[in-house]
Amino acid sequence: MIISVIGSSNPATTEHVKLAEAVGRELARRGVMVVCGGLSGVMEAACRGAKSAGGTTIAILPGRSPADANRYVDIPIVTGMGYSRNVIVVHTGRAVIAIGGAFGTLSEIGHALGDGIPVVGLKTWPLSRNGDGVAIDGAIIQASDPVDAVEKALAAAAARDKAEQAKRST
Amino acid sequence: MIISVIGSSNPATTEHVKLAEAVGRELARRGVMVVCGGLSGVMEAACRGAKSAGGTTIAILPGRSPADANRYVDIPIVTGMGYSRNVIVVHTGRAVIAIGGAFGTLSEIGHALGDGIPVVGLKTWPLSRNGDGVAIDGAIIQASDPVDAVEKALAAAAARDKAEQAKRST
Amino acid sequence: MIISVIGSSNPATTEHVKLAEAVGRELARRGVMVVCGGLSGVMEAACRGAKSAGGTTIAILPGRSPADANRYVDIPIVTGMGYSRNVIVVHTGRAVIAIGGAFGTLSEIGHALGDGIPVVGLKTWPLSRNGDGVAIDGAIIQASDPVDAVEKALAAAAARDKAEQAKRST
Amino acid sequence: MIISVIGSSNPATTEHVKLAEAVGRELARRGVMVVCGGLSGVMEAACRGAKSAGGTTIAILPGRSPADANRYVDIPIVTGMGYSRNVIVVHTGRAVIAIGGAFGTLSEIGHALGDGIPVVGLKTWPLSRNGDGVAIDGAIIQASDPVDAVEKALAAAAARDKAEQAKRST
Repeated sequence: MIISVIGSSNPATTEHVKLAEAVGRELARRGVMVVCGGLSGVMEAACRGAKSAGGTTIAILPGRSPADANRYVDIPIVTGMGYSRNVIVVHTGRAVIAIGGAFGTLSEIGHALGDGIPVVGLKTWPLSRNGDGVAIDGAIIQASDPVDAVEKALAAAAARDKAEQAKRST
Repeated sequence: MIISVIGSSNPATTEHVKLAEAVGRELARRGVMVVCGGLSGVMEAACRGAKSAGGTTIAILPGRSPADANRYVDIPIVTGMGYSRNVIVVHTGRAVIAIGGAFGTLSEIGHALGDGIPVVGLKTWPLSRNGDGVAIDGAIIQASDPVDAVEKALAAAAARDKAEQAKRST
Repeated sequence: MIISVIGSSNPATTEHVKLAEAVGRELARRGVMVVCGGLSGVMEAACRGAKSAGGTTIAILPGRSPADANRYVDIPIVTGMGYSRNVIVVHTGRAVIAIGGAFGTLSEIGHALGDGIPVVGLKTWPLSRNGDGVAIDGAIIQASDPVDAVEKALAAAAARDKAEQAKRST
Repeated sequence: MIISVIGSSNPATTEHVKLAEAVGRELARRGVMVVCGGLSGVMEAACRGAKSAGGTTIAILPGRSPADANRYVDIPIVTGMGYSRNVIVVHTGRAVIAIGGAFGTLSEIGHALGDGIPVVGLKTWPLSRNGDGVAIDGAIIQASDPVDAVEKALAAAAARDKAEQAKRST
């Protein structure tokens, strides 16, 4: 199982960095791999947390060198595609945990929700109504702390797996 | 000059379709080309408006066939890349006009603002604070009607051109 | 109708530049648009030829600025995706004309033939056997001069259109 | 260290499948990870070989589901970008081993050599002259058997690492 963790590169807030590190650690404790954009800030913190618990970390890098990855990355995927790599970050996880975040994170939330990929939010973008005027309060699954975020992401990923398996066997 | 128009495919609201058609028409009247995602709803309305005033329309298509484009598209660009094509939609315009919109539009707004591309909003996503807690009320330039949106987009595009030329000549 | 023209950026040979200019001109005379990678060498020559006959030229740019396009480009598509944009160059044409070419051109020939897009060659890569040992002499349609290349590309594009329409109406 | 293995999906020849399996196994024995396109044929054989020696396998998938990966894949990267994912396959390895191959493999060889990524060939595409008429006999490093291919790929990757480190420290 792979879960995506998204959020700001530096400067990320101290609070978000702590949350991301705890999320990475909790994922690794449950044997779940972390995929992220591979750079600094929240991405680095999630990788550091995962490694502290013996986990595996995957980076989807925008540039052309694995040397761009933070030091806690095990598997650097080198896209050379710039920020279009954001789509791959969210597609590679079975669910997404969004922690804080600026505009890059917003693009990832948009791609994920547009493609039916569950997003769990930990103090992330507040989105209550879309541009078409539709209420979307429940679109991001709200979590209260890192353990809650991980548990909700795993539950959503399991439900997604089940739905997709049912579809394939039809 | 090329300006991007983004918003929902069908079902789009009647109001947003009317706004998009007027935006396309006003852009074409000023000799500006329209780029969009090439499908239905707001995208089709923007193209129809542009063609009604003799403009040129460009579609950045997610699939592998030009036959996916709406009937008002002059230049179908066939990416075969799925929704990663959203990045190309916003990069190809010198500014973006967002009309209404669901999650695909949100991903485009995120990509544009993350890359310093001006976004003018016409009844689009309300975004007042990002996930990191920073106020971003001014990030999307608000427009009151199609003519206002076009004028603000052209002004922002001109300012961007000037800034980038200054940077290149340094 | 859009046809792709592919080949080397500078340094391109004088012979290939002349061929590309003639190909661009012949396409434009028949009302066909030219799409290419938008940079120098064969790409620039094809655009210059097309503009000399009043044609329309489309560039699929690897970088993030329309200022990267050669001066004969009408429609700069800004991908920001590096050389993954090569796939879009060949998908956007209904057939491809390859003139000379180095490794970038080889990647485009591979993508085109792998996806069933016809490739006409004008003094391009000699490919007689694939890596699996299969003879592929006929894979690239050989042309003797620019007019021949354009006529063969248009015939192949028409056949492809017909086959795809038949498939869609099934 | 990650090395790319490229070649045909089914039907691949029995000979190429055996070579790919041995290449995967030899890479894994040396503690090297394998990245490939994740599908059948040569890709599956390379993954199977790597797993037989306790290695780690990475798939860069064209579609939108990790269920598309062959059963020997540990890390399924889900791009949703179709065959533009070929660029990522070759960028993610520090060197590429090409075994046999049809047009998809040709596109990958073109992308790799165009970007300065070393390619080692094991009974792959014969390329002796490019479209510009330049002799390129040495462009693909020829290997005589799987062990030779792996050793040459690792030597080329080490030389590339050294050159890029020197460049970064300038």
